[in-house]
Amino acid sequence: MSDENQQSAPISHEEIFRSHEGGKLSMVSRSPLVTRRDLSIAYTPGVAEVSRAVAADPVLANTHTWAGRLVAVVSDGSAVLGLGDIGPAASLPVMEGKAALFKTFADLDSIPIVLATQDVEEIVRTVKLLRPSFGAVNLEDISAPRCFEIEARLIEELDVPVMHDDQHGTAVVVLAALLNAAQVVGKDLAGLKVVIAGAGAAGIAITEILLAQGIADVVLMDSRGIVSRERDDLNSIKAGYAARTNPRGLIGGPKDALEGADVFVGVSGGTVPEEHLTELAPEAIVFALANPDPEIMPDVAAKYASVVATGRSDFPNQINNVLAFPGIFRGALDAGARRITPVMKLAAAQAIAAIAAADGLRPDHIVPSALDPRVAPAVAEAVAACARAEATV
Amino acid sequence: MSDENQQSAPISHEEIFRSHEGGKLSMVSRSPLVTRRDLSIAYTPGVAEVSRAVAADPVLANTHTWAGRLVAVVSDGSAVLGLGDIGPAASLPVMEGKAALFKTFADLDSIPIVLATQDVEEIVRTVKLLRPSFGAVNLEDISAPRCFEIEARLIEELDVPVMHDDQHGTAVVVLAALLNAAQVVGKDLAGLKVVIAGAGAAGIAITEILLAQGIADVVLMDSRGIVSRERDDLNSIKAGYAARTNPRGLIGGPKDALEGADVFVGVSGGTVPEEHLTELAPEAIVFALANPDPEIMPDVAAKYASVVATGRSDFPNQINNVLAFPGIFRGALDAGARRITPVMKLAAAQAIAAIAAADGLRPDHIVPSALDPRVAPAVAEAVAACARAEATV
Repeated sequence: MSDENQQSAPISHEEIFRSHEGGKLSMVSRSPLVTRRDLSIAYTPGVAEVSRAVAADPVLANTHTWAGRLVAVVSDGSAVLGLGDIGPAASLPVMEGKAALFKTFADLDSIPIVLATQDVEEIVRTVKLLRPSFGAVNLEDISAPRCFEIEARLIEELDVPVMHDDQHGTAVVVLAALLNAAQVVGKDLAGLKVVIAGAGAAGIAITEILLAQGIADVVLMDSRGIVSRERDDLNSIKAGYAARTNPRGLIGGPKDALEGADVFVGVSGGTVPEEHLTELAPEAIVFALANPDPEIMPDVAAKYASVVATGRSDFPNQINNVLAFPGIFRGALDAGARRITPVMKLAAAQAIAAIAAADGLRPDHIVPSALDPRVAPAVAEAVAACARAEATV
Repeated sequence: MSDENQQSAPISHEEIFRSHEGGKLSMVSRSPLVTRRDLSIAYTPGVAEVSRAVAADPVLANTHTWAGRLVAVVSDGSAVLGLGDIGPAASLPVMEGKAALFKTFADLDSIPIVLATQDVEEIVRTVKLLRPSFGAVNLEDISAPRCFEIEARLIEELDVPVMHDDQHGTAVVVLAALLNAAQVVGKDLAGLKVVIAGAGAAGIAITEILLAQGIADVVLMDSRGIVSRERDDLNSIKAGYAARTNPRGLIGGPKDALEGADVFVGVSGGTVPEEHLTELAPEAIVFALANPDPEIMPDVAAKYASVVATGRSDFPNQINNVLAFPGIFRGALDAGARRITPVMKLAAAQAIAAIAAADGLRPDHIVPSALDPRVAPAVAEAVAACARAEATV
């Protein structure tokens, strides 16, 4: 990108605060309100005709209100960036940023909804009561394991697309990067031995998407080591993954997991000692995604791996979920999809990977730039095509 | 207004529906997101500094998120315009219109929140849980008597301005119009005998503001006649007004109420037979505010009254609450007011009346045009000044 050099100019505290004054979002009226005639169309008495029509045929709410193109960005502020449980008010700047990204990359309107509760029942009920106000729900920065139940409940109980981006947005981009990284190192995707460090929202979703993609040898690790059938300290979610992953029945710690592994994906926020990387297979792949401090710095990882990616914009191969979520929601809304399905997520990953591949794959180029304007429309098209195909099955 | 003639061109069903396609609102990002540097300021890692600051000092949410200038327009769709209980989805076009008016007249952002419940407890709890998402609450098109309890509860339990516009927006503009109408007919305001037909949201709020303004002789009527201490069929709210109004102890129907009355305010949606108007005092004032069909047509009312107003834009003296709510919320937010007090509402009415008066009062000019751009800033200034004065008491 031509703006890469600008990155080197330091960003001051003052500049950040100045740019946040008054918030990052604004509303505009798409209806002119200059004449009495304007007022009679957009408000009374004209609007009554539209309201009456929606009452008679609720589908018209999708086309004649903004709800059909509106994403609610919902958070309880319990797991905000690397800051943790800072509460709903403090999460709002992040949700505004998310809404700004939706607008910029997918031309979708969105509203931040930050909730003063961390009770699963209350969050589910509140979002359900708000349902007529929007057309899709992006759950954001909600801590595990509550995020799994909230997402599952809302997917089941709402008739609109719901996705927890910290899980699936990240997982989609990781799969996209892995598709291309496997190409670069010349290894067969399905045969890869993958280790995922971190069994939170992102780690679980990455596991899920890799299994859906047909990668059989996935080993998940939490802070106590390898998630295996031998362990008796696992919650029900992890116990489920112990049964579905780790086909070689590994037990032990990171060093045991990494022995002969082709791929290491770090989403733990922890660190990986350099000596552990010596265990990796030749031509290995390392995604060290903790932000702002990767589990291992890329220059060190590069000694033991052929392809290295991080979550940071100042290193090559940034795994950034902005590559996924704007296009996924846009495609789902464009197609009138009721759900964002596993097949749609795989299609999104393929679309992201294809754009980087079209520009030529290299060890330092396995994903497009986070700012690449081609990505969201391509993802949207792929997701919408899937949604339409699934609807006809 | 120079656009008055445009009103005569009929507005077609097609034109109304075309102008509502895709909804009437859109979101814009106030932060450019073109370069990596932009992304690092508006999103990670820069935004984390702002979130951390808000977590440490929640007051910063007012200045460094959009919440401090954001009004939630909340409805359950139970009493939408003259359409009644059409539900939340069908109410959304009206709430979008309201948001467009907030933006156009007061440069305030707002988001429509339409709720899939009509349960008072659930509405109150939901709005409270959403609280960190916005800076003020405009309740809209919620049926009586639930609207009274919901508003009272939210005013008590939230720390931000809350106003049910169907009550107080209307009441403020009625008072503004009455201030000027009394001038036009040369009568002393406090001595006026006022009859209000309709004891719903608007009628109750008009009663309340006239009492606050010092008008002692207010007679309220519901569908069964004059609200009086003699009646045993009144709910607790009306029984309260029976005790505080009707100082002459009138009983009976509309004809009894109108005998010698100086002012008739219709907010009933019913009709008033012409013969009843013969009972009015000389130099009477008639506000027939039912929409789209006034309780009595202005040409008929003019035979018995010196000043006539309606809710319609195609007759002189339109009583339109767009004259009030944008400026009231803007003033309250500008001043950081916790509540919208009775004194602030009186000040808003004075400000509206003063603008019409400055242009010269006539029987057909007692309120400014609904589109007059001077009104909202003047109302905002008056309300903010009150808020600041009250805060220092």
